Amino acid sequence: MIKIAEVKAQDLNTDKFIEEKVKEISSIVGDGEAINALSGGVDSSVVTMLGHKALGNRLKTYFIDNGIMREGEPKEIVDLFKKLGVHVEIINAQDEFFKALAGITDPEEKREAITQTFYKDVFGKLVRKSGAKYLLQGTILTDVDETTAGIKRQHNVFEQLGIDPQKTFGYKILEPLVQLRKDGVRKVAEAVDLPESIFNRMPFPGPALSARVIGEATPERIKIVRTATSIIEEELASTKAFQYMAILHQDKVTGMRDGEREFGSQIEIRCWDSIDARVAKPTRLSFDVMEKLANRMVTEVPGVVSVTYNITTKPPSTMEAI
Amino acid sequence: MIKIAEVKAQDLNTDKFIEEKVKEISSIVGDGEAINALSGGVDSSVVTMLGHKALGNRLKTYFIDNGIMREGEPKEIVDLFKKLGVHVEIINAQDEFFKALAGITDPEEKREAITQTFYKDVFGKLVRKSGAKYLLQGTILTDVDETTAGIKRQHNVFEQLGIDPQKTFGYKILEPLVQLRKDGVRKVAEAVDLPESIFNRMPFPGPALSARVIGEATPERIKIVRTATSIIEEELASTKAFQYMAILHQDKVTGMRDGEREFGSQIEIRCWDSIDARVAKPTRLSFDVMEKLANRMVTEVPGVVSVTYNITTKPPSTMEAI
Repeated sequence: MIKIAEVKAQDLNTDKFIEEKVKEISSIVGDGEAINALSGGVDSSVVTMLGHKALGNRLKTYFIDNGIMREGEPKEIVDLFKKLGVHVEIINAQDEFFKALAGITDPEEKREAITQTFYKDVFGKLVRKSGAKYLLQGTILTDVDETTAGIKRQHNVFEQLGIDPQKTFGYKILEPLVQLRKDGVRKVAEAVDLPESIFNRMPFPGPALSARVIGEATPERIKIVRTATSIIEEELASTKAFQYMAILHQDKVTGMRDGEREFGSQIEIRCWDSIDARVAKPTRLSFDVMEKLANRMVTEVPGVVSVTYNITTKPPSTMEAI
Repeated sequence: MIKIAEVKAQDLNTDKFIEEKVKEISSIVGDGEAINALSGGVDSSVVTMLGHKALGNRLKTYFIDNGIMREGEPKEIVDLFKKLGVHVEIINAQDEFFKALAGITDPEEKREAITQTFYKDVFGKLVRKSGAKYLLQGTILTDVDETTAGIKRQHNVFEQLGIDPQKTFGYKILEPLVQLRKDGVRKVAEAVDLPESIFNRMPFPGPALSARVIGEATPERIKIVRTATSIIEEELASTKAFQYMAILHQDKVTGMRDGEREFGSQIEIRCWDSIDARVAKPTRLSFDVMEKLANRMVTEVPGVVSVTYNITTKPPSTMEAI
């Protein structure tokens, strides 16, 4: 395991950091080509900007539409980067991901299926096609910590786990943000002129909406949780919460509609107050807000008869359910 | 289907009702013997008192300890009736019930397993042993309504479903409360000198704690939800809520303890404001109360890492989860 020297946000000179990282990327990649995947999260957005500054058109940036993104997300992100002068190509890989996810209910196996599909199938193909030998990636220090602690298997920390991506996947991974935590990345994001919608963007998991369904991530179940996610992001946008989410449970519960029994689904809402995601408390939403949310869920999301709000602290809860 | 003439609580003359029902029971049973099962709920408690008034020692009252009751419940109920001069015999049938419940996850099949075990195995045996040909039962009108509507299969409405209990189980069922709803039964309960802990007792489902676990009702899972139920009944006793409950989910969620990942259980809390259980709203508990509840759950209930509060209205939710 490589020991990484943390750079704390308060000690971070963003201009110097950007200059150093741009130089580093340039010198490693030389006159070759690099490739990266942009998810729209702050980490991959910053990496895209650093790579673009270092390599210009020799960085090929792809937005992988894995079918488990939020409503309208691919187009929004691509449009945003277009305004910044960065061309991003959307790759429709929905079928590959849903095929890999079919039948899987275990959260670890889900992550693994997404990782393998992403790196081996979809990215492997793109790399081979492009001839690029370098992959830029937005790994941050917290990803490394959580993976080595075994709390969650992040999808971008191969070297720390002793896996050689060059041998395994055929390319070298550059991780320019690995010394930073989220607050540091946000500072850099602002300094590279990313808009606030990116540098203050709410955390969203790597496995996207598949992390928001307990049990199998089928196209139908992803569609359900996508609708629930749109509702929650609309209703809770005005809160100052650190993160909020809707989770589709696998457990079925009894409901009734028009006097008849309906064995339906439950949506769990989580909304967290937190500074740095290490500890968190449930946001004290008003019951007016919670009842409106519940009412929209049972009215607008097909099959939902029950809605809960998570009232646990982290720890022992985690922010995400799986 | 038999058409039942409802007697509304406000039209109910309790003394006249008691006198009529006692006479009715006496005249049907004659000098024979009757048998009944007391769960400690207001319905079966009233039936026990009416039967005792009509038949004295010729009514044999049993408390079936099915292993899915709340902490200390069997002894509490038997002690309470002893003070009223009514002898109740506890029958330990835990093994029979858990054997019947093993491997069953579907709520309807769970109810059916409990019904069959109760009537055919445990009660059938007692009836054959006692020679009693009459079973007194606390069916109320709401049970009939919900069963015929198909919302929930209650365990005590055979005749309304066209099942002849004499042919099926070997005895005749008397249902002295079948014209009443819960509010009427409570009035009668008070009039037959039952204590407030009975006539204002919070509703509790027939399938007891097995209705409070989603998925299989194993001895271990019942023990978990029994502990959670004790906590909730302690913490919410001072609220004026109509009903509150803890539900153990089958879905597992990620948690962390001492910096390590723990894939654990979730407890859902429901607390309802309602007049007559036909419609209900979540009680607006304070976050202080909810966080204390959640904290006790994750500290005192083994394996629990997450706690939610249900924020849906009935309908489309039901009071119970399954």
